[in-house]
Amino acid sequence: MSDSPASSVSIVPGRTRFVTEMTVRPDDIDMHQHVHASRYFDYLLAARYDQMARCYGMPMEAFLERGLGWFTRTSHFEYKRPLRLGERFTVTTWIEEFHRDGVRVRFEMHRADPRKLACQGWCDFTLVELDTGRARAIPQDIARIYAV
Amino acid sequence: MSDSPASSVSIVPGRTRFVTEMTVRPDDIDMHQHVHASRYFDYLLAARYDQMARCYGMPMEAFLERGLGWFTRTSHFEYKRPLRLGERFTVTTWIEEFHRDGVRVRFEMHRADPRKLACQGWCDFTLVELDTGRARAIPQDIARIYAV
Amino acid sequence: MSDSPASSVSIVPGRTRFVTEMTVRPDDIDMHQHVHASRYFDYLLAARYDQMARCYGMPMEAFLERGLGWFTRTSHFEYKRPLRLGERFTVTTWIEEFHRDGVRVRFEMHRADPRKLACQGWCDFTLVELDTGRARAIPQDIARIYAV
Amino acid sequence: MSDSPASSVSIVPGRTRFVTEMTVRPDDIDMHQHVHASRYFDYLLAARYDQMARCYGMPMEAFLERGLGWFTRTSHFEYKRPLRLGERFTVTTWIEEFHRDGVRVRFEMHRADPRKLACQGWCDFTLVELDTGRARAIPQDIARIYAV
Repeated sequence: MSDSPASSVSIVPGRTRFVTEMTVRPDDIDMHQHVHASRYFDYLLAARYDQMARCYGMPMEAFLERGLGWFTRTSHFEYKRPLRLGERFTVTTWIEEFHRDGVRVRFEMHRADPRKLACQGWCDFTLVELDTGRARAIPQDIARIYAV
Repeated sequence: MSDSPASSVSIVPGRTRFVTEMTVRPDDIDMHQHVHASRYFDYLLAARYDQMARCYGMPMEAFLERGLGWFTRTSHFEYKRPLRLGERFTVTTWIEEFHRDGVRVRFEMHRADPRKLACQGWCDFTLVELDTGRARAIPQDIARIYAV
Repeated sequence: MSDSPASSVSIVPGRTRFVTEMTVRPDDIDMHQHVHASRYFDYLLAARYDQMARCYGMPMEAFLERGLGWFTRTSHFEYKRPLRLGERFTVTTWIEEFHRDGVRVRFEMHRADPRKLACQGWCDFTLVELDTGRARAIPQDIARIYAV
Repeated sequence: MSDSPASSVSIVPGRTRFVTEMTVRPDDIDMHQHVHASRYFDYLLAARYDQMARCYGMPMEAFLERGLGWFTRTSHFEYKRPLRLGERFTVTTWIEEFHRDGVRVRFEMHRADPRKLACQGWCDFTLVELDTGRARAIPQDIARIYAV
């Protein structure tokens, strides 16, 4: 009922899955002709930024205007099948858990054709105040937007 | 008439312009909140790879299967207006000149909305045999594909 | 005694820690003026390549000449304090576990001055035959080199 | 004598050459086992940042504190010999010309051993006020620092 930090913990994520389509760029390819392992994180971030604007209705720019940013606290990637030059793929993400000052985002990336799991994992992102760099409790209006 | 290297010089580029639409990824952004200067080359390359497959009908993979690759000999970029986080843009490229063992590709990149010139320039690409790393004359069948 | 795969499991890692010094490059910096999260993986890889040549005495090139490569199976990164523009830092790595066809590498990255933990975690790397892309048991001579 | 913009034009660069040693990182390598073309720009920038702090005595951070930044206006790269995995190389740079609101930096990159020219070219950098993004005349004190 109240807008206290305690109540923000009670928000339950709906775990709705959002999907972004992307294409491998030539500069993503490493010496083994596969997408370089670190670029999967970049794909996840690109998908989240797309989905923040398109699916949640609150683009990254809206966070920046409020002096807020998302810092990565932990990343966990399991590589299943490499993506290759020019390949189409999808990045599916959903919020699995709300923490007091952040969210756990789970994801799967699939080769588009034929559809095969390329990579899966999760990241913990912390909401920070950009001027201090400190974590802060997720405001209720943002928690509601994310509770889909 | 003959398939001699001399005749390959007589190919005149049609200078048809091809356009690829792209989106700025978060990992392209630098500390000034703009696309990092070196990423414009990556955008050019991504657009050329897309256009090789979609517009010329000979994807990069077809070059690799013939043991051929394109190496960059010279790059020249003029930065006009920075691209920003999440921005949509277009990369327009065309072959301006045929050299005996390569092509000069000219390009323009425009912010999508409103349409404004972000970057322009050219690159000389040399056709090489991948097993030796040596430049070679462009085969007639490839020159014909590129003479649009 | 024998060179069977079963015996390769008995190798116990010595967990000797190796240290590589590095410097943040400007292109590593993201829009928050910090090193972009995915670049920490690139730092880990650069440190391992340096240590393979300098500390283990078997550079990556020696693996490639034997038709072998290391693919990343899992990466796990915990971000503690951001690295910044031009900062000196160290990457400490050690082999924590031997698996039949790979190793778990644990790492810590520290800001150089004052020394503070910036990032820690682990990666599972699998040894693969490059022509087939398949995982293979670690040969005894390589296991011995890595058992320091 | 006066501090007018007109007088700033009269500054003549000393064209002193500064050298930075670097090492190729694994994430710089592309599908042809060479350093990816766009990374040479990143190397140039890393060398300039190093030299600003170490050779000119005015690190990039000092520009940022004065609300100033350097934007790339034009880049011109001629690729001679590819750098490869783990290779040591040097980046030599010098100021070739002063413009009213910027400098032309010329550079050469050499493989360390044996010493061979890998890449050469130049970049025009413009001094900008970060809050407006506008170019501005180089202040006399900075011009003097750069007139070595």
